[in-house]
Amino acid sequence: MLTDLYQLTMMQAYISSGVQDKTAVFDLFFRPGGQINYAVCAGLESVVDYINGLKFTDGDLAYLRGTGLFDGAFLDYLRAFKFTGDIDAVPEGGVVFPREPILIVKAPILEAQLIESALLNLINHQTLIATKASKIVLTAAPASIVEFGLRRAQGPDAGCYGARSAVIGGAEGTSNVMAARNYGLSPRGTHAHSFVQSFASEYEAFRAYARQYPGSCVLLVDTYDTLGSGVPNAIRVFDELQAAGHQPLAIRLDSGDLAYLSKKAREMLDGAGHGGVKIMASGDIDENVILHLKAQGARIDIYGIGTRLITSMDMPALGGVYKLAAIVENGAERPCVKVSDSPEKLTDPGEKRLYRIVGRDGFAIADLIALKGEEFASPLTITDPVMRWKSMTLTDFTLKPLLVPVFKGGKQVYKCPTLLEIARHACEELTGFWDEYKRIVNPHIYKVDLSDKLYELKMDLLAQGKSPTN
Amino acid sequence: MLTDLYQLTMMQAYISSGVQDKTAVFDLFFRPGGQINYAVCAGLESVVDYINGLKFTDGDLAYLRGTGLFDGAFLDYLRAFKFTGDIDAVPEGGVVFPREPILIVKAPILEAQLIESALLNLINHQTLIATKASKIVLTAAPASIVEFGLRRAQGPDAGCYGARSAVIGGAEGTSNVMAARNYGLSPRGTHAHSFVQSFASEYEAFRAYARQYPGSCVLLVDTYDTLGSGVPNAIRVFDELQAAGHQPLAIRLDSGDLAYLSKKAREMLDGAGHGGVKIMASGDIDENVILHLKAQGARIDIYGIGTRLITSMDMPALGGVYKLAAIVENGAERPCVKVSDSPEKLTDPGEKRLYRIVGRDGFAIADLIALKGEEFASPLTITDPVMRWKSMTLTDFTLKPLLVPVFKGGKQVYKCPTLLEIARHACEELTGFWDEYKRIVNPHIYKVDLSDKLYELKMDLLAQGKSPTN
Repeated sequence: MLTDLYQLTMMQAYISSGVQDKTAVFDLFFRPGGQINYAVCAGLESVVDYINGLKFTDGDLAYLRGTGLFDGAFLDYLRAFKFTGDIDAVPEGGVVFPREPILIVKAPILEAQLIESALLNLINHQTLIATKASKIVLTAAPASIVEFGLRRAQGPDAGCYGARSAVIGGAEGTSNVMAARNYGLSPRGTHAHSFVQSFASEYEAFRAYARQYPGSCVLLVDTYDTLGSGVPNAIRVFDELQAAGHQPLAIRLDSGDLAYLSKKAREMLDGAGHGGVKIMASGDIDENVILHLKAQGARIDIYGIGTRLITSMDMPALGGVYKLAAIVENGAERPCVKVSDSPEKLTDPGEKRLYRIVGRDGFAIADLIALKGEEFASPLTITDPVMRWKSMTLTDFTLKPLLVPVFKGGKQVYKCPTLLEIARHACEELTGFWDEYKRIVNPHIYKVDLSDKLYELKMDLLAQGKSPTN
Repeated sequence: MLTDLYQLTMMQAYISSGVQDKTAVFDLFFRPGGQINYAVCAGLESVVDYINGLKFTDGDLAYLRGTGLFDGAFLDYLRAFKFTGDIDAVPEGGVVFPREPILIVKAPILEAQLIESALLNLINHQTLIATKASKIVLTAAPASIVEFGLRRAQGPDAGCYGARSAVIGGAEGTSNVMAARNYGLSPRGTHAHSFVQSFASEYEAFRAYARQYPGSCVLLVDTYDTLGSGVPNAIRVFDELQAAGHQPLAIRLDSGDLAYLSKKAREMLDGAGHGGVKIMASGDIDENVILHLKAQGARIDIYGIGTRLITSMDMPALGGVYKLAAIVENGAERPCVKVSDSPEKLTDPGEKRLYRIVGRDGFAIADLIALKGEEFASPLTITDPVMRWKSMTLTDFTLKPLLVPVFKGGKQVYKCPTLLEIARHACEELTGFWDEYKRIVNPHIYKVDLSDKLYELKMDLLAQGKSPTN
C-alpha cells in the first residue's frame, strides 16, 4: 500500500488494455542539481525487505474496493500479487553520480510500476542522508561525528533510517536508541541542560552523572556559564573521577562561540592535567560550519550533528527518479526515451550496465554507461555525452561493473552485508576518488560517459521524433 | 525505544541520586527563525498513540542490558514503565506562534524526560508540514492543491504523516494510498509518462486510460509535445468520453513553462467545448512559484505538490524544543530558566497557560503567555516582552484559552477529532488572522506578550544570576 494511487490505476488500465504481459525495464537514477555532485548509495536493504514483504492484506483490498476505482478481477490479481522480476543495484556504500542507473528493475510492467513509489522513497531518503553524512565526515576528519537528530527528523522512520544512513556515510554512532538496537549502531549520549537544572547546583549534577557513568562520562558545560562555571565544575568532577581510577571522556559545548570556547576549554583542561579529555560540540553544525571552525583553530574532537544532517537541511530531497528505459514484448526489446522540454529530463534508452574505469594508481577516472552485452577492450576511447569534441583514450585501466544482481525471477540472490561492512565499503569507495571531486563547494565534475552504441541509440530515438505514432 | 540514549542515562542517574520523585514541568515550543512566522499544530494524535502505547518489551530490555550502561533495578523500573503524568496541548489545526508553549508536560521527572525525543519528533515534523501546506494553500486559492510527495519524502512515515499533515494544512487529497487508507484522506492520481510510453501511441494510451476511468479521467499531456500532441490527443479522447455521456475531469502539465502552456491549453480546451475540464500542474512547485505563475495569469485550477511540500524544502525542520520550566518538590514549585549566551535560547519559567486575545471583529489581536492561575479583567494592558516601552490597553475583547487537557494522571482525557474536523478547525483559525500576519514574505509580526507576573518572575530569575549555587 506504500504506493501512489496512479500506480494502481495504471496497473488496472494495463490489464484492461491487454498490455499486461509486457516486460518493462525501469532505471532509478538521480538528476544533477542542488548540492549533489556524488552520492553514497543507501536504502537497498530496506528495498530488499520491502520486496520480500510485498503483499495486499484483506484489509487493503477492502479499502481499495471501497474507493470504487477497482474491479473484482484486479483485486483478485492484487490478492495473489508477488514480485517475479529482476532487480540489479549498486550495493549500499557505493559512490555514484547523477544520471547513472543505480538500480534497474526488469519485470512484468504491472509489478515494475507498483514498486516505483516505495523504491524511490527508500533510496532517495537514505542515499540523501548517507551522502550528507559523508560530506560532514570528510570535512570534520580527523574529528569524528555522532548523529543526534531524532528530535528534528521528519518522523520516526526518518530518525531511524537516517541514523543508519549517517553511519554508512561515516558517523561513529547515534543518540537514537531504536536505531542503535535495530541496526546494531553504537548508541551515544551525554545529558541535557534540564539534568543540570534539576539539581541544586551544576557541580552536584555533574557529580551525580559521573558517579553513575564513571567509565563513559561526558559533561555538558554550557547550562549556566561555560568558562565561568561549566568547565571548572567539570574539571573538579574529572579530578574526583581520576582519583577513583577512571578516565573521564569529554565535555560538550552546545552554545556560544564554539571556536573561542573550545580553545579556552582546551587550555583549561590541559592546564588541569586532563589532556586526554576530549571536546565535543553540538548545535546547528554542518560541513560548512565545521570548515570555518577549523579555519579558526577550534579544538573540537567530536561533532554532535543533529538537524542539518538528519534532514540534509540545505538540500532535503535527492532528485531520484524511476524512468522507463525499455519495453520487452515477445522477446524483442523496444528501447524508450522520454522526450522533454527540459533537457535535464531526457532519459537514456535500453537495458544498461554501469562501469567504473579505474586507473593504474587505483583512482577512478570516469564511469561508463553502456548497453547490456557490450564488451570493451583496451584502448578504450570515451566521449562526453554532450560536449562530443571532448574525448579521451585509455589503455591502462580496469573496468569495474557497479551493478550486482539483487533479485532474479522474484528470488533474492543477494546477501545484504552488515552495516559495518557497508560503512567500510563506503569509506574505501570515497578513498578511490580524488579530493577535487569531493570538495563541498565547486567540486570538479566527475566524467560519466555513454558508450558509443548507447549514445547513437539515444540520438536515433530523439531524431525519430517526439513519438513514433503520436 | 524511540528516544535518545541520554534520556535513559539521565533517568538512571536521577534514580541513583534520589531525585526521581520530583515532578517536572516541560514546555514544548518552537523558536523564532527561518521562514516560520506562524505554525499550524499537527502531530497530537500521534503523541496520544505514542503515550498510550509506551512500554518496553523484553527484547528492548535485553538490548539495553547488553549496552552495559544500565543496572537491574533500572531495567525493572523500565519493565513496569507507564506514563502517569499530565499533558496539555493546543489541539491539531490550532494556529500558534514562536515561543508559545504548545504542549506542556507535568509528570514525574523520569517520565517527562523519557518522552521528550518522540514528542519533539512527532510534533516538529507534522507541524512543519501542516504549516508549509497552509502557506501553499493560502497562496494557491482559489486553486486547490493535492499532495504528491511520497517518492521524495524522508522515509515511509514522512510520506504518510506528511500527507495527513498536508490535509490539515488545507490540501484536498494525496496520491499516497497508505496514508489515504490509514487517515481517511481522499486518494488522488492520474497516470505517469511511462504509461504513455508503454503504448504504441499517446492517443492509444489516453483512450485506454479514459475507458478504464471514464468518470475520473485526468490525462498527462507532456510526454511528447504538450501543445502539439498532448492537448490535441486529450481533446480527441475527451470528445469520445463526452459522446459516451461522461464528463472528463482534467489534463495535467508536468514540465515546460506552466504559465504559457496553461494559458494555451485553456484556449484549446475552451475552443473544443471543454470549458469544464480543469488544468492541473505539477513539478517543483511551491508557494513562491505559484505566486509568480498567478502574477502572469496562469490558468491552473489544481496544483499537485510533491517534494517542496513533503520535505518543507526551504525549511525542512521546525526548531521545536522541550525545555524545563519548573521543578515541583514536596508541593512547592521552583520555576526554572535556561540562561544562555544566545538570547533566543532563554526560556520562560513556571507552569504556564496560553491565551488568545480576540477583538470584537473576531480577529486575533495578540497572544498572552501567563502563569497558571492568573486571572485577567478588562481593561487589560499588554506589554512587549523585549521592547517594554510598547504597550497596549484593551477593553473590548475575549480571552480564549488555547491549551486543552489531553492526559490527566496518565489517562487520556481528550477525544481526538476526525481529520475533517481538524482541517476545518485549521481553516477557521487561519481565517481569524489578518492576511498581513500570513504573508509569505516579510509578514507583520504577531504580538506574543508575557503577563506582567510572568515577565517579572523571568527577570528576577535572570537577575539572580546564572545559577543559584553554581
